[in-house]
Amino acid sequence: MTGKRDTIIAVASGTGGAIALIRLSGPTAIAIGDRIFTSVSGSPLSRSKGFTVHFGHIRNEADEIIDDVLVSLFRAPRSYTGEDMLEISCHGSTFIQREILRLCIREGARMAQGGEFTLKAFLAGKMDLSQAEAVADIIASDSRAALTLATRQIRGGYSKEFTDLRQQLLELTSLLELELDFSEEDVEFADRTRLSAMLTEIEHRISSLSDSFRLGNILKNGVPVAIVGSPNVGKSTLLNALLNEERALVSDIAGTTRDLIEETINIQGVTFRFIDTAGIRDTADPLEHMGIERTLQRVRQAAIILLMVDANDPSEQIEAQLQSIPVGEGQQIALILNKSDKATEEQIALSKKTLQQKNAIPVLSISAKQKGNLQALTSLLYDSVHADESLRSGQLIVSNARHHEALEAARGATHRAQNGLAGGISGDLLAQDIREVLHHLGTITGEITSQDILNSIFSKFCIGK
Amino acid sequence: MTGKRDTIIAVASGTGGAIALIRLSGPTAIAIGDRIFTSVSGSPLSRSKGFTVHFGHIRNEADEIIDDVLVSLFRAPRSYTGEDMLEISCHGSTFIQREILRLCIREGARMAQGGEFTLKAFLAGKMDLSQAEAVADIIASDSRAALTLATRQIRGGYSKEFTDLRQQLLELTSLLELELDFSEEDVEFADRTRLSAMLTEIEHRISSLSDSFRLGNILKNGVPVAIVGSPNVGKSTLLNALLNEERALVSDIAGTTRDLIEETINIQGVTFRFIDTAGIRDTADPLEHMGIERTLQRVRQAAIILLMVDANDPSEQIEAQLQSIPVGEGQQIALILNKSDKATEEQIALSKKTLQQKNAIPVLSISAKQKGNLQALTSLLYDSVHADESLRSGQLIVSNARHHEALEAARGATHRAQNGLAGGISGDLLAQDIREVLHHLGTITGEITSQDILNSIFSKFCIGK
Repeated sequence: MTGKRDTIIAVASGTGGAIALIRLSGPTAIAIGDRIFTSVSGSPLSRSKGFTVHFGHIRNEADEIIDDVLVSLFRAPRSYTGEDMLEISCHGSTFIQREILRLCIREGARMAQGGEFTLKAFLAGKMDLSQAEAVADIIASDSRAALTLATRQIRGGYSKEFTDLRQQLLELTSLLELELDFSEEDVEFADRTRLSAMLTEIEHRISSLSDSFRLGNILKNGVPVAIVGSPNVGKSTLLNALLNEERALVSDIAGTTRDLIEETINIQGVTFRFIDTAGIRDTADPLEHMGIERTLQRVRQAAIILLMVDANDPSEQIEAQLQSIPVGEGQQIALILNKSDKATEEQIALSKKTLQQKNAIPVLSISAKQKGNLQALTSLLYDSVHADESLRSGQLIVSNARHHEALEAARGATHRAQNGLAGGISGDLLAQDIREVLHHLGTITGEITSQDILNSIFSKFCIGK
Repeated sequence: MTGKRDTIIAVASGTGGAIALIRLSGPTAIAIGDRIFTSVSGSPLSRSKGFTVHFGHIRNEADEIIDDVLVSLFRAPRSYTGEDMLEISCHGSTFIQREILRLCIREGARMAQGGEFTLKAFLAGKMDLSQAEAVADIIASDSRAALTLATRQIRGGYSKEFTDLRQQLLELTSLLELELDFSEEDVEFADRTRLSAMLTEIEHRISSLSDSFRLGNILKNGVPVAIVGSPNVGKSTLLNALLNEERALVSDIAGTTRDLIEETINIQGVTFRFIDTAGIRDTADPLEHMGIERTLQRVRQAAIILLMVDANDPSEQIEAQLQSIPVGEGQQIALILNKSDKATEEQIALSKKTLQQKNAIPVLSISAKQKGNLQALTSLLYDSVHADESLRSGQLIVSNARHHEALEAARGATHRAQNGLAGGISGDLLAQDIREVLHHLGTITGEITSQDILNSIFSKFCIGK
């Protein structure tokens, strides 16, 4: 990705709409606009102020009108990229979009690469790297929780967390390095007590951020849930009941992509993703018994396992099924007694009590068919994530794997520095560890970066952003 | 479709983009905007001028920031709909789009129906009905020719054609009707000679427009072409060669929907649509011989039939194949001698001459495999449409079936009026026929319309336009 000073162009809107949005950014954006666009007001874009909209025609080289468009004009540095920018809002015809791209390219623009507008914004100092990455997360967000994480990150989350500490650590490191010049004299410019306190403080912040990744990751990508149980116990009935409720909720607002909510439900803003375990779709197949390898493999990916049994089954049989499911570290399991409408209340109460006491896991009775007690199930799912407090606290929650990796590396270096300090190692070695902490934190916000890192981050963006 | 004074909202951009565009139109659009949007500049939308852009945040009822957006502001009557309008450009997340829709609906907007923004523009007198219909054609246009037709129509094509004549006919009809009041006195207020000249003039214009529908229809929807021929003669090789050339042409401009050009090629701005005749896809299947009913059925839909034969086949055999294809009225057929690379030049020249003379149809030799002489084939396809002159002349070409129907009805009424005039029928009967002509022309531009007509037109529009 080169050519910071190129003028780039891309369609920023999706396919199939009534209106399309084409973005143009760079030093010649306004000049290119004036060559293909004639405002009905008669005044050229080059003589117009930023943050104005202009109605007029795009014409091709044969002076034929291609489309009536609205052009929004932004002047450097007051634009998304910090450069001169145009946003052309044209009709959604693919032919018109292609023609406008072609005409602008003819006048010297080039097709933007994925994320290049945001890369320009980063290079212009409009945002740090973690904020730029949050832009992609915002675009991809399909739940309130995912959007909340991305929004916090874009409001300068990391910079806020670390700017002060980073500054102080940098000072101390300089002092440590200064000691080197006076090494014969055995002086200590850097206050070891203050340094130790700061390392404790930074270790604390890094750890709490890094530990938030488990939650951040599932909030961003959806909490994987597996429903397991014998054939015909009602797994697909339950899944359909949960999904249908969700669909009914969104069906009154048309125009959004329906297939995004396939197999996922949204509970109070958190997305739960149902893993396609064997047997969920085809309960009639006698081969799809619980315990077969394929099901177990899928179950291992779940954060939450719902074991579904018939409320009328003898509790020893339920017990046996429960024991047959291996629950890994970080996984939670809950027992769902289905067909509660066909069992007596006493029977259910007894089963619940026995099973709950013996296994110390949540036990719920529902009727998937009658949609009975589903509310209790969705509450159970939501509570099991423990997202409430974290989301309410307003704290930064790490949801980006690259950030998590950098935080873990910084944590390792912090521990080395702490151990070194405790062991009384020399200032220059200590400085080296602290510099490493600063380096890893710097890669998150992009104070320290490389073309490779930028390429790998921005190539994942969609074109036009 | 009711509630002209409602404030309506819809996502106008397509799915899956980096940026989405949400349109809001109606008397409370700006007030709704101010309730959910806070400009970073601090000044509310209600105090801002039209044609300005505002950067700021959308907040939900819990005062959480949903997104950073750009809001373009338009004030009645200087907007697309003629009403106050906002265009909110937000990030392309489906969640964000849904939230913004929800918040605006909460503040009193309602979801727009398909085409409702354009309906509002029509009702506000911003455009006539044929122009409103052209908006949908512009959005759907996927070739230069289709766009040209729609653009001409939106520049007031019909009104331009008929406004004068309509005015004069209305006058004459009033005079005819006046004669009724003096029917005892046998006076003629309306000059019969002038009336006859005008009917001739209007019949001429109506006919030329109505006749242009054949061309308009295929330019808008693509010219249907059928390639027929024996298995293994190279039909799919030719189709792939033609399609690949097209794909290579557009592949340098990314971001446009690829599947729209499947099975279609664009020759000088005109789209040619290859009908999926049996055998094109599966040349190896011995059952897929030419002449079977399924193939013939498809061939009947073609405007152009390309019969493909092996240049090495004896000309009697070619002749027999040619005779087996029924060529309907309005259909054109051309003979393609394939595998020209495997035949001698003399052989080809001889075949060509014999076949051309005998059948008076175009005969071309190509090599689909070597991509030899494909240029001649694309020229033949383009020339066969006779679009050149019509497109260059700048004349209105009818491409809308509803307009064609109305023109045909108007033509019928014109003929009746002409016959009546020649037969010396009374002024009131004559006036009735002329009123009918005016009625049918009026339905095109919408001077005469009904809720049913409007519903049927605008329900075909996409949401957001």
